[in-house]
Amino acid sequence: MGEEHRDTRQHDRDRIAHRREDNDCSVYIGKRPTMNYVMAAMVILNKNEDCTIKARGRAISHAVDVAEILINKFYPSAFYKDIKISTEHLQNDDHKVSNVSSMEIVLGPRKPQEPEQN
Amino acid sequence: MGEEHRDTRQHDRDRIAHRREDNDCSVYIGKRPTMNYVMAAMVILNKNEDCTIKARGRAISHAVDVAEILINKFYPSAFYKDIKISTEHLQNDDHKVSNVSSMEIVLGPRKPQEPEQN
Repeated sequence: MGEEHRDTRQHDRDRIAHRREDNDCSVYIGKRPTMNYVMAAMVILNKNEDCTIKARGRAISHAVDVAEILINKFYPSAFYKDIKISTEHLQNDDHKVSNVSSMEIVLGPRKPQEPEQN
Repeated sequence: MGEEHRDTRQHDRDRIAHRREDNDCSVYIGKRPTMNYVMAAMVILNKNEDCTIKARGRAISHAVDVAEILINKFYPSAFYKDIKISTEHLQNDDHKVSNVSSMEIVLGPRKPQEPEQN
């Protein structure tokens, strides 16, 4: 019984570690205050890594707010590396499939040096 | 009085014509049903012109829905030419400035021919 319990906890830890590794550079937008997500994204950008802001459905406009606040106020050196929109097919509890729009905004920490223009 | 009235109407017509000319290829997303905007975008794409879907604030997620429904269901040859997000500074009646996120999705009517891959 004790052994089994320890196994489960180990399994949980592995699972969480695995998930963290996967999504280390992503921020998933939900219903928390905007500044929480802005801070989370700044932590990633400060490591000099690209940060991906992901959102689904109604949270998409919230994701755009987060990215704009970040670039205009807190991290002016960041830039939009890529913006992707797509549809995800989610199965709910009744085994019905519903289509939900999703968005990924990839932010780079430093703008690439532009060639001088005259 | 009659003269003045005619002037006003002429002015209105000019203004509307001017606005139409500017925004002929844009669809502004508001609170109407999604399919209205899908149809409006299809009319523009059918003329073989690029269509720009524009939205502000909470309507941004609605704009993404419109674009995804259009590409996945009604106009599969269309493609994302460009996606831009920015902040607009709007002045309300109290002369206070509020920042609102905005989005522009540019759709092209036909995917460019890709070189064959082996």
